[in-house]
Amino acid sequence: MHFSDKLAAVIKAKNSCLMLGLDPNWEKLPVHLKIGDSLQQKADIYETFCTDMIGACADKVCGVKIQMGYFEALGSVGVKAVENIIAFTRKNHKELIIMIDAKRGDIGSTCAAYAKAYLGNGPLGADSVTVHPFLGADGLEPFYAYGPKKGVFVLVKTSNPSGSQYQASIYEQIAKDVEVAGKRGKNGWSYLGAVVGATNGDEIAQARSLMPSTWVLAPGVGAQGGKIEDVLAIRGKDGLGVLIPVSRSVLYAGNGEDYLEAAQVEIEQLWESQKIN
Amino acid sequence: MHFSDKLAAVIKAKNSCLMLGLDPNWEKLPVHLKIGDSLQQKADIYETFCTDMIGACADKVCGVKIQMGYFEALGSVGVKAVENIIAFTRKNHKELIIMIDAKRGDIGSTCAAYAKAYLGNGPLGADSVTVHPFLGADGLEPFYAYGPKKGVFVLVKTSNPSGSQYQASIYEQIAKDVEVAGKRGKNGWSYLGAVVGATNGDEIAQARSLMPSTWVLAPGVGAQGGKIEDVLAIRGKDGLGVLIPVSRSVLYAGNGEDYLEAAQVEIEQLWESQKIN
Repeated sequence: MHFSDKLAAVIKAKNSCLMLGLDPNWEKLPVHLKIGDSLQQKADIYETFCTDMIGACADKVCGVKIQMGYFEALGSVGVKAVENIIAFTRKNHKELIIMIDAKRGDIGSTCAAYAKAYLGNGPLGADSVTVHPFLGADGLEPFYAYGPKKGVFVLVKTSNPSGSQYQASIYEQIAKDVEVAGKRGKNGWSYLGAVVGATNGDEIAQARSLMPSTWVLAPGVGAQGGKIEDVLAIRGKDGLGVLIPVSRSVLYAGNGEDYLEAAQVEIEQLWESQKIN
Repeated sequence: MHFSDKLAAVIKAKNSCLMLGLDPNWEKLPVHLKIGDSLQQKADIYETFCTDMIGACADKVCGVKIQMGYFEALGSVGVKAVENIIAFTRKNHKELIIMIDAKRGDIGSTCAAYAKAYLGNGPLGADSVTVHPFLGADGLEPFYAYGPKKGVFVLVKTSNPSGSQYQASIYEQIAKDVEVAGKRGKNGWSYLGAVVGATNGDEIAQARSLMPSTWVLAPGVGAQGGKIEDVLAIRGKDGLGVLIPVSRSVLYAGNGEDYLEAAQVEIEQLWESQKIN
């Protein structure tokens, strides 16, 4: 099935364009969960924290976005935890889209290896991955080759304070190229997406005018100061075309024994603020 | 010790600015080594292949450059193989500089996690790492924070065919920023490096004029068509300032039982062509 059609189905079923961002940060975890601090223990705790969080939020999100950096910081045992989280999600919430936020980018032969890792049939194989455009077309095509069944989200304009430093003069061209490269699904949306920070409302609006049929993944709502209304303003009439990752505000909504209930209260509020019907 | 001083010591001791690039590619491995094809078996074979290759070439190189993509394609067992290769090198060839060619780049908080992974004290902790500049200063500073003991190599102008597509209008500014950001060691060279493809001699020359005290890592010599003389032309009078990764031409010099001897013949020739004294 075309990635975009699979994504549309779960967005409609859940009435949600929210993605649960899994960025487990040891410093911020509820204290009572931190029962050991070897790399293996931390990896086990990250895994349990994330799978419990998926269970708590699954009704209100269309997918999960796994931030590789936090897991890689633990080494191979952290990467194994990612494999286990993917397997858990496939088994227990198979409707959810799994995105690996890996932001990989290299020359073509190396990207073919990364694409195999994150979009192939191996233990890290997900439904979509985030990638860097810095190396141009031949660093992107090995990922695109997994489409249209798999989704590829290209960094276009990021949400961090220095996002414009080098991106300012090139992001419009990157956006145009992503729009052209993406083959459309039955619903008219491409299997490609663009990562565009939600912290600048004008850029979000511009992103849609440059990329009318490309999904926009807009990080930065909440903790980073982006407004959800700015992102919803570029959603299609069909309720599709945007994905809003929510992570810190949900994952760390509470830091006591009731942290999962606190996360549910938060995701419920976010869900109310964006539901289509 | 300042990264640059450690690097200078091994370059002088080995009379070599070559780095052994470890890009294990299943399709290209000698057939007799491929005794099993589960992910774990492949990871074990990659590990043995790489550690044997390090043993065969250690006298003629100043370090090893580990290409993460090929290992990640195997999932967590591949990442575990990287940990084992790092441990092997630290134990048996502790003078060698270990670089992880990971090309990571993200917002600051995530880069802090990546920096901890690849420059910290964990099992993937190396001496240096390659990074993407796309997110600007706050995506680079978490890596720079591990300097000057650790080295950070920023992508400036890459060697692939579409390298200019988005880099053309920004690489000069990236180069200038890297030059300014790098604190110098006793030998006058920065702890920062720039990745500049060897496939364009003019760009290599320009890189040095823009970055007089920054290390230049120049991939693309050999298989990709870059000329070693172009890179050696920007080496300092002290024999420092450039690193030349060599991978495919060495790793796959032979595909029979004598593949290690074939690799040694190749690395010896490369070494002759660049030795300082």
